[in-house]
Amino acid sequence: MDHQPRIVELRRNILKDNDLKARVLRERFAGNGVFVVSLVSSPGSGKTTLLERVLTILSKKFKVAALVGDLATDNDCRRLQRSGVPVHQITTGTVCHLDASMIERSIAEWDLASLDFLFIENVGNLVCPAAYDLGESFRIVLFSVTEGEDKPLKYPTIFHTADAVVISKVDLAQAVEFDEAAALANIDAARPDVKVFKVSARTGEGVEAFLTALCAKAQGESV
Amino acid sequence: MDHQPRIVELRRNILKDNDLKARVLRERFAGNGVFVVSLVSSPGSGKTTLLERVLTILSKKFKVAALVGDLATDNDCRRLQRSGVPVHQITTGTVCHLDASMIERSIAEWDLASLDFLFIENVGNLVCPAAYDLGESFRIVLFSVTEGEDKPLKYPTIFHTADAVVISKVDLAQAVEFDEAAALANIDAARPDVKVFKVSARTGEGVEAFLTALCAKAQGESV
Repeated sequence: MDHQPRIVELRRNILKDNDLKARVLRERFAGNGVFVVSLVSSPGSGKTTLLERVLTILSKKFKVAALVGDLATDNDCRRLQRSGVPVHQITTGTVCHLDASMIERSIAEWDLASLDFLFIENVGNLVCPAAYDLGESFRIVLFSVTEGEDKPLKYPTIFHTADAVVISKVDLAQAVEFDEAAALANIDAARPDVKVFKVSARTGEGVEAFLTALCAKAQGESV
Repeated sequence: MDHQPRIVELRRNILKDNDLKARVLRERFAGNGVFVVSLVSSPGSGKTTLLERVLTILSKKFKVAALVGDLATDNDCRRLQRSGVPVHQITTGTVCHLDASMIERSIAEWDLASLDFLFIENVGNLVCPAAYDLGESFRIVLFSVTEGEDKPLKYPTIFHTADAVVISKVDLAQAVEFDEAAALANIDAARPDVKVFKVSARTGEGVEAFLTALCAKAQGESV
């Protein structure tokens, strides 16, 4: 028995529901003046390490909060809470992505009007999160130099939905013989003219430039 | 409108269909004396690099073939074909995992009786492939030292379905300050007593030991 047509129809309805919820969220965020940034990547690309640095720096000047998604554990939440900002863990069980309903539930008790930035770290997955709008203003795809230069070509959908790309772990570029020109050409093929940042959350390289651009974007300037 | 109960029911039916097809495949593989090994991991954990080495070495003594799944591109297929063995690319589009039907179609023109080993490289994804039986005899989960020691705890389902774990890119362990004891404890928590191999496909470290164990397993010995 072939369930394919039914699953396609149901999937379309679910995505439509999600889009409607995400639209409501986006209006709420805008109405409260919150700039919402989501981060997607493979497992282990360094989302949490970068975010910990970002939260620590930004919280000196802005009101910042974060949501973090994982199948299991609250390790990332506890890591991010070291920055001193409010962080909620979203534990998805076997679900491979965050969706707008999860975001809605997680922020229910927060006073959005008091926030300047909300960061959302998705489940580590370069495929499924692509289809789920979370109401964010800015979606960042990370990929680390250790993953190989061809990832934008092999996971084009997620790169195609990105507002910016972060190449992470650049301190390891030499050790893994990372071919930056090839990576940039592949990013450009998947998402022409997208802004690319090169960072090492470990050494701090590139983080300031990334944050300067992010703050400019939050103030309505083009990145 | 909440589609959750319908999607759960439909998903259950799809998985049941897949399990039935996988069971038929498993019987066909066993009947033809083919030992089928699947590899799952995050994007960029080194599945293809390891597999290229494995195919090159094993093909000197055995009849070997491979299937490789990606959302887009046939890059991996072309890389693996350099080993000289038959390789088919499965391009999944937006589908985040391989399933038994895809395997069935991809091997339709192969004479299984002439093969000793079939390797199946899944789409890079630590979540969704966990639920789909491909009829394999042996499922290997890779994770690279660059991804962080906590991955087995954060993606427990896929580790729980593994017959063996490969820690890859061990040549980078020092550069990323990989905590091997922590990683091994986390693997053991997710999948007690599973066999763990440490390899570097780049330097070749650990590959022979891995293949010796794999050949023993193919001959019915316990790993």
